[in-house]
Amino acid sequence: MLRDADFFARAKGITVFTGTRATAIDRREKSVRVIELATGAERDLVYDALVLATGSEPVPLPIPGIDLDGVFSIGDLHRAIAVKERIAKGLVSRAVIIGGGAIGIEMAEAFTDLWGIETAIVEFREQLLPGILSASLSTMLEKHLVENKVAVYCGEGAQAIVGQDGKVAAVRTANRELPADLVIVAAGVRPRSGLAKACGLEIGDRGGIVVNERMQTSDPDIFAAGDCVEIRHLVTGKKFVAPFGSLANKEGRVVADNIAGIPGTFPGSAGAFIMKAFASCAGGVGLSLETARAEGFDADCSYTAPSDRAHFYPEQKVFCLELVFDRRSRRVLGVQGFGAMSDALFARLDAASMAVSRGASIEDIENLELPYAPPFATAIDALNAAAHTAENICDGRMEQITPGEFIAWMADTNSHPDWLVADLRHPQEAAAAFARFGAERWLAIPYDQVRARLSEFPKDKTLILLCNSGTRTYESQLVLRANGISKTLVIGGGSNFLKRMGADWA
Amino acid sequence: MLRDADFFARAKGITVFTGTRATAIDRREKSVRVIELATGAERDLVYDALVLATGSEPVPLPIPGIDLDGVFSIGDLHRAIAVKERIAKGLVSRAVIIGGGAIGIEMAEAFTDLWGIETAIVEFREQLLPGILSASLSTMLEKHLVENKVAVYCGEGAQAIVGQDGKVAAVRTANRELPADLVIVAAGVRPRSGLAKACGLEIGDRGGIVVNERMQTSDPDIFAAGDCVEIRHLVTGKKFVAPFGSLANKEGRVVADNIAGIPGTFPGSAGAFIMKAFASCAGGVGLSLETARAEGFDADCSYTAPSDRAHFYPEQKVFCLELVFDRRSRRVLGVQGFGAMSDALFARLDAASMAVSRGASIEDIENLELPYAPPFATAIDALNAAAHTAENICDGRMEQITPGEFIAWMADTNSHPDWLVADLRHPQEAAAAFARFGAERWLAIPYDQVRARLSEFPKDKTLILLCNSGTRTYESQLVLRANGISKTLVIGGGSNFLKRMGADWA
Repeated sequence: MLRDADFFARAKGITVFTGTRATAIDRREKSVRVIELATGAERDLVYDALVLATGSEPVPLPIPGIDLDGVFSIGDLHRAIAVKERIAKGLVSRAVIIGGGAIGIEMAEAFTDLWGIETAIVEFREQLLPGILSASLSTMLEKHLVENKVAVYCGEGAQAIVGQDGKVAAVRTANRELPADLVIVAAGVRPRSGLAKACGLEIGDRGGIVVNERMQTSDPDIFAAGDCVEIRHLVTGKKFVAPFGSLANKEGRVVADNIAGIPGTFPGSAGAFIMKAFASCAGGVGLSLETARAEGFDADCSYTAPSDRAHFYPEQKVFCLELVFDRRSRRVLGVQGFGAMSDALFARLDAASMAVSRGASIEDIENLELPYAPPFATAIDALNAAAHTAENICDGRMEQITPGEFIAWMADTNSHPDWLVADLRHPQEAAAAFARFGAERWLAIPYDQVRARLSEFPKDKTLILLCNSGTRTYESQLVLRANGISKTLVIGGGSNFLKRMGADWA
Repeated sequence: MLRDADFFARAKGITVFTGTRATAIDRREKSVRVIELATGAERDLVYDALVLATGSEPVPLPIPGIDLDGVFSIGDLHRAIAVKERIAKGLVSRAVIIGGGAIGIEMAEAFTDLWGIETAIVEFREQLLPGILSASLSTMLEKHLVENKVAVYCGEGAQAIVGQDGKVAAVRTANRELPADLVIVAAGVRPRSGLAKACGLEIGDRGGIVVNERMQTSDPDIFAAGDCVEIRHLVTGKKFVAPFGSLANKEGRVVADNIAGIPGTFPGSAGAFIMKAFASCAGGVGLSLETARAEGFDADCSYTAPSDRAHFYPEQKVFCLELVFDRRSRRVLGVQGFGAMSDALFARLDAASMAVSRGASIEDIENLELPYAPPFATAIDALNAAAHTAENICDGRMEQITPGEFIAWMADTNSHPDWLVADLRHPQEAAAAFARFGAERWLAIPYDQVRARLSEFPKDKTLILLCNSGTRTYESQLVLRANGISKTLVIGGGSNFLKRMGADWA
C-alpha cells in the first residue's frame, strides 16, 4: 500500500500537503505560514496544537571543493537516489567517505559489497564511531572494514576536495590525496530548528528545540519530536541530541497522546545503538569507558569474550563485551560489544538497556535473569559474566591492564621493561608466541600447572597474564597472590580481544 | 580438558571424592558421614561450611508397568547414555514420552529429528508446557510438533505401561493404546532434599530446602543451591522450585562468595525460560495469562504479531508475543512468545526480564529503549508495540477477544449468534474466507475503505474485526466507535495468531 497523500486522507482522515514549505509560525495567532513550492502561493494554516517534526540536516563541512559535482551528503531520499543513479550508470569506480560514523560505515559497506567500488573512509578523529564506541572495539571494527577492502584513515581530516573541470577528482588530507569519482560527506547531522528559533521557541546548547517530558516546547501549544529536539541522557542526566528513528517514534506517540488528552511522558535515552558492518556488528547502551571518564565518572571496565550460546552448540560464537562501571557507586554506566553478525549482541544490549537506564548496580547485572537453553545462551550468560568480572575488578580482586595497553606495550616494550608475559594457554596455543618473542618476553606455563610450578614465576617481574578470555588468568592471579606472587596483571579479554584488535600472533 | 577429579586437584586445589555417597549430616559435630560405594568403607568428613547441591530427581509415576525393561526417566547422564545405546542398536522404532514439559518435548525432537523414531507425547493436562506457557502459544507449539511428525495427546494421562515378556510394549491412556519399544517418563522433577530433611533442616511446602537470600539453610553453616532449594518468585512473591541450570550457577556463586566472606545475595527468579523445538522456539519471563489469573491478579493480555526486524530486511520474520499485565496496578506480569527459531524472541525476553522482575509498568515497557538498526529490529520494537497495545486495552480504548475465543466461536458459531466477522484485510486475503464462510458470517471491507463505507457495517451485530496482526483493526475500531458503531471486538494478534494456532483459512 503506497502511503501517499491520498492514502492518508482515505485511511486516516489526515490531510497532507506535499510540495509545501512552512516558512513562519505566528504563535499569537496560532497559525503557520506555508508556501506551495510549485506555484509560490502563500497561505496560513491555523492550529490548536502544532507539532514540529523538522528533523535534522547534515553538518556542512567548511572545506574547499564541497560544491563540486559528485559531492553528496545523505540528508534525504532524493540525494540517496541521485548517488545510486550515478553508480548504476557506471560513473563511480572510487569513492571517498568523509566521516567514520554509522552512516559513513554503512555507506562504505554498501559501496564495496553491493557495487564493488574501491572505497575509503576519512575520519578526522582517532577512531571510527568517535564518542560512541570504545577505542578497543573501534579497533576491531576498523580491522574488520579493512579486511573487507574498505581503506580507513583515522586521525586525518579532509582538508580539501580537489576538482577537475568542475567535477570531483580527489580528497586531500594532511597525509595523502585519495582519488575519487564520488565523495560522500557524512560528518554528522544537527537539529533543523530554524523555524522554531525564528518564532522565539527555546533552543538548547546543542542546537535542538527544548522540550519537556511531554514533548512540549517552551510554548505549551507547540510540540516537537524527532531529530530536531534535545532529550535527556539517562546516564549523564544532561541534554543531548540523539537522531535515532526508534526514539523519534516513541516521542511521536507521546506527542499524539498528549494532544489527545492522554498523559504520557518520554523520559529520555541511554543512547542505545547497534550497527551491522559486513559480517560483524557493533553496538552499545550507555557510555563507553572513554566517554564515562570524560563525563567525570570514576569509571573502569571489564573485558570479556564469552560464547553467545552453549559451547557444544554448532552455531556457537565468541563475541567481545565491555561493561563500564563507576567504582564509587558501583553503578553500571554502559555495555558495549563487537561480534559476528547475529542477534547475540543485540540480545545482551536489550537485556542491559533497562538496567543502564535505571541506574542498576554491578550486582543487579550479576543476578539479571535471562532465559536459558543451550541453543540461545550459556548457563552463566555473557552479560552476567561481564558483571562478575566487573565485581572482581571493582573489589580489587582482579588487577588488569586493558587489551589496548597490552598492544601498546608489545609495540614498545621499553615502556615497561619489567613486564614479562606469563602465557597460561594450552601449550599448543602458547608455542607460536613463545617461539617468536623468546624467553626474554614470554613465559609459557599452562593454567592447570600453575599450582605445581609456582617457583618458575619470577618475583622481580610484573607478570602479564595471558589466556584466551581472561578467566583462567584471573583464577591464576588469585592462586599466585595467595602464594606471595602479587605483581601480576591480567590482560582483560585475553587473546580473544587481542587477535580481533590485530595481534597476528594471538 | 577433561574435568575429572585429577583436574580439580591439579588446577583448583579441590579434592573430589567420586563414587562416594553422603548418608548423614551431624550438624552438632559438623561432619558428614560418607560411604565409598566400591568398598563399603564409611568415614566422616568434617566441615566449617557445608554446601548441599543435591539437585532434583524425577517424579515417579504411580502406574503399572513403570519398572518394565525399556522404561526410562532422564535423571542423569547414565540413563541418557543407556537410552542412546538402545536406539543406536536399532532396538527402537516407536517411542512414547509421558509428559509434555520441556524435557519431554526436547526428547521428542531428538528422537524424530536425529533418529527417525515414530514418537508420541502423552500429557495428562490439556496442553503442552502446562502451567508454563499460555494456552494459545502452546497450541502453536503443539501444531508445530505435529507438523514435524510428533504425535501429541494432551488431556490424556498414561494409565498403564503395557509389557510383553518383561519388556515394554505400549502405553495405555483412557482413549488409546500407543505401541512403544521405548518409554520416557518425563513427568517433572522434585528437589532431592532427603539428606537435608533427615538432619533437621527446614524444608518448604514445595519439598525444597528453605534458604535465605545468602543461600543459607536454617543452619547458618550449611548452604544449599540448585534444584534442591526453594527460591522466591519475583512476580508472585511466593516460594517456588525452579530447576534451571542458569539459576543454579548464580546461586552457586552467591554461596561461594558468602563462604569466602564476600556479601552477595540471590533475590529470586521470574521463571524465565526458552526452548527450541524443531524450527521454532517458545519462551517467556514472568507469568502467562492463565497463571496470572490463577494467582489472583486482575490480569489481561495483549496479543501482537510483530516483525522481528525491518520489513524490508531479507531475513525478517513475524513472531507472536503476549504481554500480560495487571489492570489495576498496570504492572507487567509477564511476556511470552512463539516464533521461528532465532534469537529474536530471546532478545525481547532478555529486554523484558529486568522489567518484569522489578515490577515495571506498561508505560515503562513502552519507553524501554532497545538499540535499533534495520537488520536487528523495527523502529518501534516488538516489545514496545506489545506494551502500546496493552495500554490501549488497559485504558479501554481497544476492546478485544483472544484468538482462542475466536477459534472456539468458529467451531461453534451458535455460542454467539450475533457475531459477524468484519475482515479488513486486503481483498485478496479476505476472498478465500469470504467464499468459504459466506455473507452470513463474513463481511469483507478493506481497512483503507472503512471511512468511506461506514454504512455497510451493520449496527445490530457485534463486529469481530480481523486483520493480520490487530493493528489495522484497532485503528478501525476507533473510527467505527467515533461514528456510532460501538459493538466491535478486535481479534488479538489477528490472522498471524490464528493461522499458527491451526486456522487453515487465516
